[in-house]
Amino acid sequence: MFESAELGHKISKEVWRKAIPALREGLLDAQLDLLQAKKFPVLILIGGVDGAGKGETVNILNEWMDPRHIQTHTFDEPTDEESERPLMWRYWRKLPPKGKIGIFFGSWYSAPIVDNVLGNIKNSEVDQKMERIIRFEKMLTDEGALILKFWLHLSKEQQKKRLKSLEKDPLTRWRVTGTDWDNFKKYDRFRCVSERALRQTSTGEAPWTIVEGTDPRYRYLTIGKAVLDALRHRLDAPVGAVHSATLPPTLTATDNLTILRCLDMKKKISKNDYEEELEKWQGRLNILSRHNEFRKHSVVAVFEGNDAAGKGGSIRRISQSLDARQYHIIPVAAPTEEERDQPYLWRFWRHLPRRGKLAVFDRSWYGRVLVERVEGFCSEADWMRGYSEINDFEEQLVRHKIVVVKFWLTITADEQLRRFKEREKISFKRFKITEDDWRNREKWDAYEQAVCDMIDRTSTEIAPWTLVEANDKYYARIKVLKTFCERIEKALGK
Amino acid sequence: MFESAELGHKISKEVWRKAIPALREGLLDAQLDLLQAKKFPVLILIGGVDGAGKGETVNILNEWMDPRHIQTHTFDEPTDEESERPLMWRYWRKLPPKGKIGIFFGSWYSAPIVDNVLGNIKNSEVDQKMERIIRFEKMLTDEGALILKFWLHLSKEQQKKRLKSLEKDPLTRWRVTGTDWDNFKKYDRFRCVSERALRQTSTGEAPWTIVEGTDPRYRYLTIGKAVLDALRHRLDAPVGAVHSATLPPTLTATDNLTILRCLDMKKKISKNDYEEELEKWQGRLNILSRHNEFRKHSVVAVFEGNDAAGKGGSIRRISQSLDARQYHIIPVAAPTEEERDQPYLWRFWRHLPRRGKLAVFDRSWYGRVLVERVEGFCSEADWMRGYSEINDFEEQLVRHKIVVVKFWLTITADEQLRRFKEREKISFKRFKITEDDWRNREKWDAYEQAVCDMIDRTSTEIAPWTLVEANDKYYARIKVLKTFCERIEKALGK
Repeated sequence: MFESAELGHKISKEVWRKAIPALREGLLDAQLDLLQAKKFPVLILIGGVDGAGKGETVNILNEWMDPRHIQTHTFDEPTDEESERPLMWRYWRKLPPKGKIGIFFGSWYSAPIVDNVLGNIKNSEVDQKMERIIRFEKMLTDEGALILKFWLHLSKEQQKKRLKSLEKDPLTRWRVTGTDWDNFKKYDRFRCVSERALRQTSTGEAPWTIVEGTDPRYRYLTIGKAVLDALRHRLDAPVGAVHSATLPPTLTATDNLTILRCLDMKKKISKNDYEEELEKWQGRLNILSRHNEFRKHSVVAVFEGNDAAGKGGSIRRISQSLDARQYHIIPVAAPTEEERDQPYLWRFWRHLPRRGKLAVFDRSWYGRVLVERVEGFCSEADWMRGYSEINDFEEQLVRHKIVVVKFWLTITADEQLRRFKEREKISFKRFKITEDDWRNREKWDAYEQAVCDMIDRTSTEIAPWTLVEANDKYYARIKVLKTFCERIEKALGK
Repeated sequence: MFESAELGHKISKEVWRKAIPALREGLLDAQLDLLQAKKFPVLILIGGVDGAGKGETVNILNEWMDPRHIQTHTFDEPTDEESERPLMWRYWRKLPPKGKIGIFFGSWYSAPIVDNVLGNIKNSEVDQKMERIIRFEKMLTDEGALILKFWLHLSKEQQKKRLKSLEKDPLTRWRVTGTDWDNFKKYDRFRCVSERALRQTSTGEAPWTIVEGTDPRYRYLTIGKAVLDALRHRLDAPVGAVHSATLPPTLTATDNLTILRCLDMKKKISKNDYEEELEKWQGRLNILSRHNEFRKHSVVAVFEGNDAAGKGGSIRRISQSLDARQYHIIPVAAPTEEERDQPYLWRFWRHLPRRGKLAVFDRSWYGRVLVERVEGFCSEADWMRGYSEINDFEEQLVRHKIVVVKFWLTITADEQLRRFKEREKISFKRFKITEDDWRNREKWDAYEQAVCDMIDRTSTEIAPWTLVEANDKYYARIKVLKTFCERIEKALGK
């Protein structure tokens, strides 16, 4: 989930200077419209890693908008008044009324996450608290509230850098305390706990937006634009379109840096190396699949990628190493009539493998948030809830000791064009290229955005995405095979 | 929650013979419309107490409708096939497609409830399972499914009777096994666990309907009518009215027996007895309120009732026994402008008492499911989700060691008329009677239905309703005071 927030996003001074006046004007206008319409309240939740600029972000939002109609709330240890009431009382008291904006610094997420990191409460207790939060937020959105949740992230290295640089400057030294360094030691644990919390509470109605905190201009601009977009989206929604209009639109990276664009697409290996590696990993996979321990597990592999990125070839290199009775390849195309009459995930549930078996999905449930989203085959509300339904689904698989391995095979637009043309030329490959493929190419940008959102929202610690640079087929196949083996080995505890 | 299902509901042969032909025709018609529209699937969940007629009910539904388009599923121990997949796989496999009806015998609720009763799994684990179920059902309703959940209930005595009578009859003796009697010993535990599960999973989109299982005609007719009403409600909904139309309408008792009508409204006590009892209980309350242990708790009391039922008088008899610094009476009228700009429950949260204090609500959050429902001040979806929001709210109070005491003061229509007229005559009581009161009277039946639904859905083990027969003011005041004291004593562990 944090991959996109570790790319080193940056906004230049120039871009910043150009963007700010319009953004501030837009925010003030939206705020005024909100105030006059008085139809719904806005809750902005700011959470995240220490040193990622949470406080400054809150300050700048107050600076950019009319602070008379924004209330900012922080939550430390409960006061006497508060601790004598049920837990949620302090938050209820501070809810903004219709027409106003409330900024919740840390919000209801801080305490359970920190308590869990420090080991004061157990996982099952955190789960209960998260469920309480989900019900609370559902009540709020049912009542019409617009909830915007931002998580400011720093990589471990960036957090260290940030704390050091604050310490060096005499003007900011006071801001770094011993506690900050103590917390830093728990970075990995914090990351793991917060990832879990974010995954559980990123609902269709109130999803999280993760923002890289390193560059101040980037984080301000990103959050400012996201707030503006969400406000306008909701304020300008036609009357009656309540349900989907409560959803903030997804985020486009303000600096055009995406996780896909950061890949080194030049990666390749030689034919000789390929053949050697292929033999090595195929052999390893074969041994793994016959391992005693493997009978207690199963594998669900997902292959997604650009058209012509080589999914089929990669899948074949896996299946070649396995006993044919042990695996099942499920090509996913348009749903059958029977499948259309069932909830979306039904057609994937039916193919789940038994113990000791592997199911390889050539395209998958991610169609919901890729092709269905981009082509408008389902409503915004449907694909937005898709992310949490998918995370929920995969969590059930992992809990059941299924190893979930997900690959996104990516090629550049140029390489795709080359392959399309080649396919048209070779008669036995012609069936592989259709009108649809050419049409999809025209929507390259929309698909790229959908892929980035998908990775941000569904690449989880328990079921991470592996991005595969696939301009070179040899390189791609080996990366797939190697990852595949390593994930299984890890699950078998080897 | 089970109060209404222990009244001894019964349908006479005559009523039955009259009702059945139309019901069966209606069901067949609705089923055909469902099949032809093919817009949504229907899931009928049947759960409940052993011996309450679950199996027979499933049989009769199959008999009344076209069984070719109904699939009935039971779930025993998972098969090999099933146990090698994640828990929910067996249910996904059996989901009915659009246009069809699936009956789920026991459904996904049986296993967690029974396992909890037998002590195989802990409460926190059940909570997690229930949350999984909520997410599963939410996904289904988001996908358009109509979910009807019926819980067949028997009182402890009725269950014993039923098992005995089955045993006596040579034709049915085989149906009663040793396990049934073993289970019977765990009746109280079963009741408590299932009440909790029902409360947690009775959501606005998929609420439970509790049906008394004693009389076969009553249970068949009730469930048959509920299924028909819900189907028609959804089939005839205008296009686009998706959200509220997914909700089945609430249930009117098919035999016109309601929990209110079963009260003995003739209950009374003499003036002498009243004065003696009053002194006794007021003294007791005073001592309780000054008890050391009381400082760790607080009390939230709710007074609801018919107009002129004597709420004010009862409240005064409580406040007279307390130190004025210790309690706070909150008269609840129409919301202020400030309150209207907040989520519904906000105006009650703000009045929650500190430790050692009492808050007495003269009318309360139940306005949502009483006046707002009946007068149409909010949408059906809003008051339907009200029940679970209220249960959730009260659970938070109880967890925080707040004693929640809820009274419904009921008088007969005749007595109300007498009191209205009296009030009009006495000058200093005239302010108490308004146009609204007369208008509400005209909606007596609608209010009665709303009150019964309220009690069915919100009288929980942790926060039960006390129904007070209030035709005699003396009797009512003593019952209130006594209950009030006893609930506090119980909380203080005395």
